[in-house]
Amino acid sequence: MAKENKKLVEAITSMEEDFAQWYTDVVKKAELIDYSSVKGCMIIKPAGYAIWENIQTELDRRFKETGVENVYMPMFIPESLLEKEKDHVEGFAPEVAWVTHGGLDPLPERLCVRPTSETLFCDFYRNIIQSYRDLPKLYNQWCSVVRWEKETRPFLRSREFLWQEGHTAHATAEEAKERTIQMLNLYADFCEEVLAMPVIRGQKTEKEKFAGAEATYTIEALMHDGKALQSGTSHDFGNGFAKAFEIRYTDKDNQLQYVYQTSWGMTTRLIGAIIMVHGDNSGLVLPPRIAPVQVMVIPIQQRKEGVLEKAQELCGRLGKVCRAKLDDSDKSPGWKFAEQEMRGIPLRVELGPKDIEAGSCVVVRRDTGEKLTVALEELEEKLPELLEEMQREMFERAKAHRDAHIWDAHSYEELCDIAANRPGFIRGMWCGDQACEDKIKENLAVTSRCLPFHDREQIADTCVCCGKPAHKLVYWGKAY
Amino acid sequence: MAKENKKLVEAITSMEEDFAQWYTDVVKKAELIDYSSVKGCMIIKPAGYAIWENIQTELDRRFKETGVENVYMPMFIPESLLEKEKDHVEGFAPEVAWVTHGGLDPLPERLCVRPTSETLFCDFYRNIIQSYRDLPKLYNQWCSVVRWEKETRPFLRSREFLWQEGHTAHATAEEAKERTIQMLNLYADFCEEVLAMPVIRGQKTEKEKFAGAEATYTIEALMHDGKALQSGTSHDFGNGFAKAFEIRYTDKDNQLQYVYQTSWGMTTRLIGAIIMVHGDNSGLVLPPRIAPVQVMVIPIQQRKEGVLEKAQELCGRLGKVCRAKLDDSDKSPGWKFAEQEMRGIPLRVELGPKDIEAGSCVVVRRDTGEKLTVALEELEEKLPELLEEMQREMFERAKAHRDAHIWDAHSYEELCDIAANRPGFIRGMWCGDQACEDKIKENLAVTSRCLPFHDREQIADTCVCCGKPAHKLVYWGKAY
Repeated sequence: MAKENKKLVEAITSMEEDFAQWYTDVVKKAELIDYSSVKGCMIIKPAGYAIWENIQTELDRRFKETGVENVYMPMFIPESLLEKEKDHVEGFAPEVAWVTHGGLDPLPERLCVRPTSETLFCDFYRNIIQSYRDLPKLYNQWCSVVRWEKETRPFLRSREFLWQEGHTAHATAEEAKERTIQMLNLYADFCEEVLAMPVIRGQKTEKEKFAGAEATYTIEALMHDGKALQSGTSHDFGNGFAKAFEIRYTDKDNQLQYVYQTSWGMTTRLIGAIIMVHGDNSGLVLPPRIAPVQVMVIPIQQRKEGVLEKAQELCGRLGKVCRAKLDDSDKSPGWKFAEQEMRGIPLRVELGPKDIEAGSCVVVRRDTGEKLTVALEELEEKLPELLEEMQREMFERAKAHRDAHIWDAHSYEELCDIAANRPGFIRGMWCGDQACEDKIKENLAVTSRCLPFHDREQIADTCVCCGKPAHKLVYWGKAY
Repeated sequence: MAKENKKLVEAITSMEEDFAQWYTDVVKKAELIDYSSVKGCMIIKPAGYAIWENIQTELDRRFKETGVENVYMPMFIPESLLEKEKDHVEGFAPEVAWVTHGGLDPLPERLCVRPTSETLFCDFYRNIIQSYRDLPKLYNQWCSVVRWEKETRPFLRSREFLWQEGHTAHATAEEAKERTIQMLNLYADFCEEVLAMPVIRGQKTEKEKFAGAEATYTIEALMHDGKALQSGTSHDFGNGFAKAFEIRYTDKDNQLQYVYQTSWGMTTRLIGAIIMVHGDNSGLVLPPRIAPVQVMVIPIQQRKEGVLEKAQELCGRLGKVCRAKLDDSDKSPGWKFAEQEMRGIPLRVELGPKDIEAGSCVVVRRDTGEKLTVALEELEEKLPELLEEMQREMFERAKAHRDAHIWDAHSYEELCDIAANRPGFIRGMWCGDQACEDKIKENLAVTSRCLPFHDREQIADTCVCCGKPAHKLVYWGKAY
């Protein structure tokens, strides 16, 4: 490892020493974010925003394939509108930012900056839905939202963050439920296929569900430190909001019916998940499919005649098969290597005078450090293969890590022991009583992550907390 | 014209009768926007937002080609930060929305919702620019901004609107000026090539320039009613903001220097411009390059065997050469025609049993109403040609209209006469004294639009207002 390389790497704490500090160091040193003079709000820098752009492009394409259309709603919600659905306002009012003045004049009614837009969409749907012919409505918006959190962390919890929020209205309860699950599965597939991040799909308990929802579904990922991260949620509202907002349509028999609604969202927090699932002690590691730059071409002895020209030509050729970039800055190769590693760029191509003479170059994989010598004329074929291989193996490694950190607790004693000593998901039976959920959360700082869809094993007959008969398997865990 | 067709068209006021009402009717009936329960804030509906998405995609591509990178800055600006540049705060403070509470607690300092983000970018640049190696910085963001306007109109002036704001920092004044002009030309080319909207490129007077800028450049388009619309602006800040915010870098001789900055923006107001440049009494007319749907396939007698299948197959084929959509709803063909016209979809393909038998279909141009019979197997070749032809002719028509509405005023009397009777741009010499500009604005409701780049004709020797010697040609006009 070159001297400069060490210098940049030493700038980040190792994850074994202090995972939280490692995370903070990576987001800063990989130049994903910067702090702003607005407490709790972050600046997303080009390297971070480019990841978000790729997330947007891919999700948006998948949404549109299911018939979703994009709209834009106002960022302000009048206080009286926020208050229309009782559970919803109770959930959000304590953490919204209030606008009280427009210019020099006090406003007749306070406006909150949207923490989420259910109330605005309901107000809109009430106006535009009259007949069954107007259904379904499948709208989504990309925007920023504000929640006045007390403690903040870049990407994971900030006072303002970017997201998409889908809001749909349907004629029947079945159709709404179907859409809720469809979007959850879309999120899960996106995480697994594009972010190389395995997720558990399941349902939230009553305690953990969204304010105003009938049911909340979630995907839960496991970070490298063994903590869970809720990575996307999809809510089935039944007709609760429709009743509060009087959203009705005339059905085919000319009867007035309430609509059934859903909402679903994913946020910039996904970037935090990518960091904590794939990162290592040299910095960020980006799955190739989401990486803004997939291949960094780094010339060696670039002042020697012909090197830079050859590197430029190569980069131009590679640009046709992947997202390639040339680092022709006047930094040393060692420093460039360290930067490319810190920023998580999947592949590095090293090209010096000797390589050019031999008609080959050195390709280095970011995830494994593996070095390959590849003939220059084979690069266009080889690099896309390598990127796909890396994408697949990154998913497999993350899955193996996740699966090796799922523990079964058959009793409260065992639960306490695991919660204290073994990072990861804990499988434990639950009687369904919220008192047990409260007790576990209060005593062990462990929350119910979900009742999983695809894992219904009856690992015991009794509740892991109270010992009463239990039939529900719950994934528990410490969470971000 | 079918009965249903008439019905939908009659729903909009004719533009000759009342242009403002025509505009409002079109934005509503073409389903571009809806009003929200937040006064002065609009809901952008799918048909409107899809136009904005196309504008974004095309502008963003052009920005990136010039080296611009996207970032995201907080939506809030602390009051003390907004106040750092004197002219800037005076320009914006009267029209910002103030956040005073976060959750239940009053904030230690008021935050305004960004009306524009110069101050945030300056604060950011102060932290990240140290050396000449850090320059230039070429950042842009796509976001929404808030200006608490008293009177609002959809797209043209609303309390919240969507835009992009580019902010750059450079080592020299020359480089900053060059970037300012580069971006103005990029905007102008975009308007002319993509929106088929001719623009006048020029410089704003001192009176009309941006709060805090050394020079503001603008592109001005002429609407169908003869009013001007400022369609994009680019500002050269010199080092004024750098001095207020202490943004300095060490140059190659190790001397501390202030940076030179620019900013430039385009907004959803462009959608208003498209409507008012190209629209007619049947509704919206979209230039093909920006139209979310370019070709609407409308089956005739769609219940007859084979019609819908053939229409589907045709639409699938056309989807490979243009953005095509099939209207297979159970509305009548006449109603579908009227909707397609109202929404401004450039081409309509009518396909009925007789057409299928003849192996042809009827293609109707939205802008001219021209009907062509085209053989089915020639459509893939013919439609893209027609779309390009329409794009070109729409630009030419708009330019002819604009050029036919430029009037020369050689005296104040003539200026009064033209301002009262002839809608359009007025060319008139100006002595450079703001008193004349103020007088013209106050008495005639006409403002200086710009000192044009490409038109430096000395049409008279004296100021159109005061009669003193004058060397500056100004385009004047009533404006949105």
